[in-house]
Amino acid sequence: DSNLKIFSLNSDPALSKKIGEILGVDLGKCSVTRFSDGEIQINIEESIRGCEVYIIQSISSPVNEHLMELLIMVDALKRASAKTINLVIPYYGYARQDRKARAREPITAKLIANLLETAGSTRVIALDLHAPQIQGFFDIPIDHLMGVPILGEYFLNKQLDDIVIVSPDHGGVTRARKLADRLKAPIAIIDKRRPRPNVVEVMNIVGNIEGKTAILIDDIIDTAGTITLAANALVENGAKEVYACCTHPVLSGPAIERIQNSKIKELIVTDSITLPEEKRIDKLVELSVAPLISEAIKRIHEKQSVDELVQ
Amino acid sequence: DSNLKIFSLNSDPALSKKIGEILGVDLGKCSVTRFSDGEIQINIEESIRGCEVYIIQSISSPVNEHLMELLIMVDALKRASAKTINLVIPYYGYARQDRKARAREPITAKLIANLLETAGSTRVIALDLHAPQIQGFFDIPIDHLMGVPILGEYFLNKQLDDIVIVSPDHGGVTRARKLADRLKAPIAIIDKRRPRPNVVEVMNIVGNIEGKTAILIDDIIDTAGTITLAANALVENGAKEVYACCTHPVLSGPAIERIQNSKIKELIVTDSITLPEEKRIDKLVELSVAPLISEAIKRIHEKQSVDELVQ
Ligand SMILES: Nc1ncnc2c1ncn2[C@@H]1O[C@H](COP(=O)(O)O)[C@@H](O)[C@H]1O
Ligand SMILES: Nc1ncnc2c1ncn2[C@@H]1O[C@H](COP(=O)(O)O)[C@@H](O)[C@H]1O
Repeated sequence: DSNLKIFSLNSDPALSKKIGEILGVDLGKCSVTRFSDGEIQINIEESIRGCEVYIIQSISSPVNEHLMELLIMVDALKRASAKTINLVIPYYGYARQDRKARAREPITAKLIANLLETAGSTRVIALDLHAPQIQGFFDIPIDHLMGVPILGEYFLNKQLDDIVIVSPDHGGVTRARKLADRLKAPIAIIDKRRPRPNVVEVMNIVGNIEGKTAILIDDIIDTAGTITLAANALVENGAKEVYACCTHPVLSGPAIERIQNSKIKELIVTDSITLPEEKRIDKLVELSVAPLISEAIKRIHEKQSVDELVQ
Repeated sequence: DSNLKIFSLNSDPALSKKIGEILGVDLGKCSVTRFSDGEIQINIEESIRGCEVYIIQSISSPVNEHLMELLIMVDALKRASAKTINLVIPYYGYARQDRKARAREPITAKLIANLLETAGSTRVIALDLHAPQIQGFFDIPIDHLMGVPILGEYFLNKQLDDIVIVSPDHGGVTRARKLADRLKAPIAIIDKRRPRPNVVEVMNIVGNIEGKTAILIDDIIDTAGTITLAANALVENGAKEVYACCTHPVLSGPAIERIQNSKIKELIVTDSITLPEEKRIDKLVELSVAPLISEAIKRIHEKQSVDELVQ
């Protein structure tokens, strides 16, 4: 279908290549480089007039660079008469800035939605947004794909006995429940609380984990403080072993060191964020979202329903 | 006037401090830092409800970081009920991407205007935009300040004899004419041309420079290729000595080395872009735009005309 064009910018070339292969589509020719002063230079090297264009780009680190590449690409495609401009954003950065937690804070997740629309995007395909409410930040169609089935399938194939799915905090219980449904397992919750101000937090575990294989699940693992403390608390409280998984491995700052030194046996992540070589430690297992994203692109392009793929 | 608030982000703290001092206004308290993963974190540490807020920030290198800081700050101020949000942008990055020079190019200078408006800006104060047409990219009021008088005053005070103002290319002749008017001097033009394709360029000089003190003027000096070749051509063709000046010292890549090794005697620039220590070479003279910007803020805030300050 010569009307379908897929472009990869700089965040996820390997993932994009896989998607192109699955769909049997050559990636669009374009170069995204820098002028001498650091300004982004984009050259689209084939006509896209009248085409349905999909851009694959995560808003991952370096986050402001990747976001600006995306905005400038959308501008270029719009001016080059693309029929539709569909953004495939495996990792939506700034998602944790999704509300005013304190006075005079920005709501950057909303700002970015506005910027993407202003540039000329006509549709967004996202994956496991930090808060599902971010869908409402857009006034263009958004398809919100689920990462949990990919993680769930991995654990199903592993055929672990006597498992419990654990949410590392109160905010993640719905996510843990979804994984537990797929694995037909019970859930538990790490119930962190501070008994009095200025007193150290207590890691209380709600639910039965004694002798069980615990699977911690989160959407984002960033500095890995929460997840590694949770893993260690689970082992101290009698869990047999601890797996951890997430959709988006941000893994910034001390994350890798913390994971190495923690009781986590295996960390399962997806390629929604491209990891540099030094972060690909032995404990880490990477699953690909390429089949999921390819299927979504195919169905959207063919105007079929994506019901089973979305949240 | 407690209704006037001036905030500095990370691009130009020293310039902002000077502006605050000239206006007798303490800069607004805010911190602009990074989360562990590189996302921008902004905290505005004083109420700005109902205030007329001025943000001082150049879109200078690292250009995408500085632009995003500005956009997120505008978002935060808007949500915190600022009455007006006035952007003071001494250097407007991406200004050279102001038209489609080739097929399928973005027009990033226009995109940025749209992004700044979308975020919630209500006014822009800019300085020597690469093309005056960029004013038309905005649908909010824009005041376009002139840098040439600052450069002109420097040369007037120097009392050089027998000078000629030289444009390093065809595009800069209007700018050279403006400086020449102030210095009551003639102009000359470096008329680069390629006699046949694939033949080296010829540096032809239109105008009389023999035995004169030549002053090259440009708006931006980036890699300094054009300006240093021009300076050397002027000396080879009989100029007594060569000064160069510009409003915006981008000075990327080989710029400093080229300037050091060139026949340029002195390079006069402004602080519209904050230069790191290693670029502050002996040949370089920095003039401040702080008095000009302060005067503009004062007049705009007091609803007086800025006619003499703008182009
Ligand atoms: N990139 C980031 N890194 C760490 N914390 C963040 C980041 N962005 C936002 N936050 C903070 O994380 C909190 C929201 O996280 P959550 O409670 O998990 O939704 C807010 O208080 C934000 O200030
Ligand atoms: N940051 C940059 N560095 C170098 N060249 C640029 C930059 N941005 C745009 N350009 C190119 O500069 C040309 C415009 O410069 P000018 O002719 O001086 O207006 C265009 O062809 C652009 O492709």
